[in-house]
Amino acid sequence: MNELTIELSTENGKCLYEQIYEYIRKEIREGKLLQGEKLPSTRALAAFLQVARSTVELAYEQLLSEGYIESIPYKGYFVCRMEELYHINMETEESESEKSEQKTVYEIDFSPNGIEMEYFPFGTWKRISKNTLIDDRSEMFALGSPQGDLELRTTIAKYLYSSRGVYCSPEQIIVGAGNDFLLLLLEKILGRHVKIGMEAKTYKRAYRIFDSFAYDIHPILQDRDGMVVEELEREEVSAVYVMPSHQYPTGNVMPIGRRTQLLKWAYEKEERYIIEDDYDSEFRYKGKPIPSLKASDKMEKVIYIGTFSKAIAPAIRISFMVLPKKLLKFYKENLSFYSSTVSRIDQTILNEFIRDGYFERYLNKMRKVYKAKHDLIVAGCRELEEQFVLSGENAGLHILLKSKTGKTEKELIECAAAYDIKVYGLSDGYITKERPETNTVILGYGGLSEEKIKKGMDKLKKAWSV
Amino acid sequence: MNELTIELSTENGKCLYEQIYEYIRKEIREGKLLQGEKLPSTRALAAFLQVARSTVELAYEQLLSEGYIESIPYKGYFVCRMEELYHINMETEESESEKSEQKTVYEIDFSPNGIEMEYFPFGTWKRISKNTLIDDRSEMFALGSPQGDLELRTTIAKYLYSSRGVYCSPEQIIVGAGNDFLLLLLEKILGRHVKIGMEAKTYKRAYRIFDSFAYDIHPILQDRDGMVVEELEREEVSAVYVMPSHQYPTGNVMPIGRRTQLLKWAYEKEERYIIEDDYDSEFRYKGKPIPSLKASDKMEKVIYIGTFSKAIAPAIRISFMVLPKKLLKFYKENLSFYSSTVSRIDQTILNEFIRDGYFERYLNKMRKVYKAKHDLIVAGCRELEEQFVLSGENAGLHILLKSKTGKTEKELIECAAAYDIKVYGLSDGYITKERPETNTVILGYGGLSEEKIKKGMDKLKKAWSV
Repeated sequence: MNELTIELSTENGKCLYEQIYEYIRKEIREGKLLQGEKLPSTRALAAFLQVARSTVELAYEQLLSEGYIESIPYKGYFVCRMEELYHINMETEESESEKSEQKTVYEIDFSPNGIEMEYFPFGTWKRISKNTLIDDRSEMFALGSPQGDLELRTTIAKYLYSSRGVYCSPEQIIVGAGNDFLLLLLEKILGRHVKIGMEAKTYKRAYRIFDSFAYDIHPILQDRDGMVVEELEREEVSAVYVMPSHQYPTGNVMPIGRRTQLLKWAYEKEERYIIEDDYDSEFRYKGKPIPSLKASDKMEKVIYIGTFSKAIAPAIRISFMVLPKKLLKFYKENLSFYSSTVSRIDQTILNEFIRDGYFERYLNKMRKVYKAKHDLIVAGCRELEEQFVLSGENAGLHILLKSKTGKTEKELIECAAAYDIKVYGLSDGYITKERPETNTVILGYGGLSEEKIKKGMDKLKKAWSV
Repeated sequence: MNELTIELSTENGKCLYEQIYEYIRKEIREGKLLQGEKLPSTRALAAFLQVARSTVELAYEQLLSEGYIESIPYKGYFVCRMEELYHINMETEESESEKSEQKTVYEIDFSPNGIEMEYFPFGTWKRISKNTLIDDRSEMFALGSPQGDLELRTTIAKYLYSSRGVYCSPEQIIVGAGNDFLLLLLEKILGRHVKIGMEAKTYKRAYRIFDSFAYDIHPILQDRDGMVVEELEREEVSAVYVMPSHQYPTGNVMPIGRRTQLLKWAYEKEERYIIEDDYDSEFRYKGKPIPSLKASDKMEKVIYIGTFSKAIAPAIRISFMVLPKKLLKFYKENLSFYSSTVSRIDQTILNEFIRDGYFERYLNKMRKVYKAKHDLIVAGCRELEEQFVLSGENAGLHILLKSKTGKTEKELIECAAAYDIKVYGLSDGYITKERPETNTVILGYGGLSEEKIKKGMDKLKKAWSV
């Protein structure tokens, strides 16, 4: 019988059975104890090591449960037969610190993604979350409905009705952790082989997502009213992705005429659907908000996607999708096992935030804040009127400037950069194979202070003066 | 010129321009104002209605921006040409109240999904979240890294190293809102056409998810050590899904011998990967925890998925995935634009909860709590030894009872139901075409109080006595 001379220590804090277990485990892994080899009986080993028999038994049990040894009745313990063991690769790799891609930082960055967080009612949010954690805890920590809590969906339905003209029941709403997740879910609903039409200039993130679905994406000719519907027929797509209230990047509003054309297209065939991304409809600075396309959809053909990440805060990972009845039925029958991606705590907080009017108040506040910024940047642009045509104003958080003097977007960006200002090229938005060199730049202002906007516009005047 | 006799009211709270806008909009939608028809000039209409000209201009501007009318320089305003308008379907559907499928409620339900929330340190959680909302707000409400905050990923990496023997850098970790989302993301990484092997008896939710990917799922013959590796060769699968530390539903541990076989299989071909779902490894009541399979993976072939929804609370929608380097590279190059599904607030709270040792303490507490329940149910089973074989004990939150007397699972479930007790059939776990009628029932105890477990086992003794 192979003698197991185990150095048992009482210093290293490890209990005796653990030391025995680890020693034998090591011996087996290193092949020093051969497969099929008999181990000493617990009694013998206990006596040999001068420990309690139960200690050895504990060690053997662990080895048994991990499959290193087997016990054969009336015979004893044997090392299991197993393939040459793959040892754990011990060297812990030094964690390569996150490669935050080296993009130069500008003094003023007119990013279209910037938003203002200064006025967010943290106090209120904090108070609500505090209360949320007080009352009915257990419920709060249980897993909720896959579609999201009914209370929140009811609140969202009311909100959609009053502010976006959308008529839907809470049952049609699916709450999810961001648009990306909802689109992943939508892929499972619409299926794999979808021919989808997107405006030639569109929201790049949505394009990338559909591309990651391996969807057959058709860039659709786009005039100032948006997607040219005749093209959809020609391209034989079955779904389209649009932003009718405020198209990104053009900032155009799809007029009612084009909307009805688009709806008509969808009504004509069973399999046709329209995906409406209503991403920043909350912010309109002139007259009333533009109604959503879904509001005019009387045949359940529009899949409506909205988010609170833009209107409240990017960190609030809560978006929602309104499914047409037919798709809802499919979802309920085939996909409702996907569990919710939003914690009930967050859902409850958001629900109260909207239900108790804080959201509406915050939106009104932000409309004023963004309008002030909007007016500033528009005023700045007016002074550039000889050289540029302004478009995309009156809504959203960005505007477009098109050079009349034949300056290319590249030149405009470079001249601005020379003055430590970052502006963005319209061509980034193109999903067509060849990206046309445009004469248009995009200026976002959501995240910039009024001073910075003023200063930025003054600098741009200089930068683009020649 | 068509006269617009608009009833302007000062009662209904609507401002004048809105009333004019809505009246004209209605006239157009109902075809009373014909397409191409000229509208009165703003001056004329203002005079006619005896309102300020600016009021009419505001109304016209809104109609312009929504595309109902167009302005032709030196000519005036005209109703746009558009297809017959689809009117908004006005009747708001009565919301059919959620159909919570009518499943009978039992006095005692041995659900395998139940978990204990009684001992969750709500106070601590509340305190941390409170503090989280105090310091650096704006950062907290900004959108974080797509993979999750580096702090949290670092904490998770440390935790995996110390408690699961997994060596990975934070860069390899992706944090997501639940396993379902992470699997949706994994689909985009592994691609569409994956032949995946799953044990014949497996976790149904995972099966449904892979099925919703339209993956080619091959049920793999399963012995008490788990998946039979030779079968994988025969079925020519490229990926497998396993739960080595505690297989669901069998409750078996995959022994080291089978693990090395499985790893060897994966090492042999470039495209082969193992998905390890380590769903309830935290709970082991005998000896030390079983190490993860990932811990023995020295060739970056194991995709490790873990969750905090089970160990902390289902409502904490935070799971994580450890990607092998090759897949990580693909993810970073092609999919990192998918934005994070977990709010930074929740990530920060969880990070502190783990980092400051509360998680470890809570786990230790819960191991004791669950062990007490485990021991109670096992004791109860001992009294049924003549009729049943017990298996799946010593870990997790459920055990299995196999009838020796030839009682079918159906009979066992029905007898139990007669005593107002709910137990579950093993056959639910089968993914093979024909579901064999088994003699085995599953009893989960995580969510039941010790009294209920005692009472339940006593009742089952009676129920199954004949």
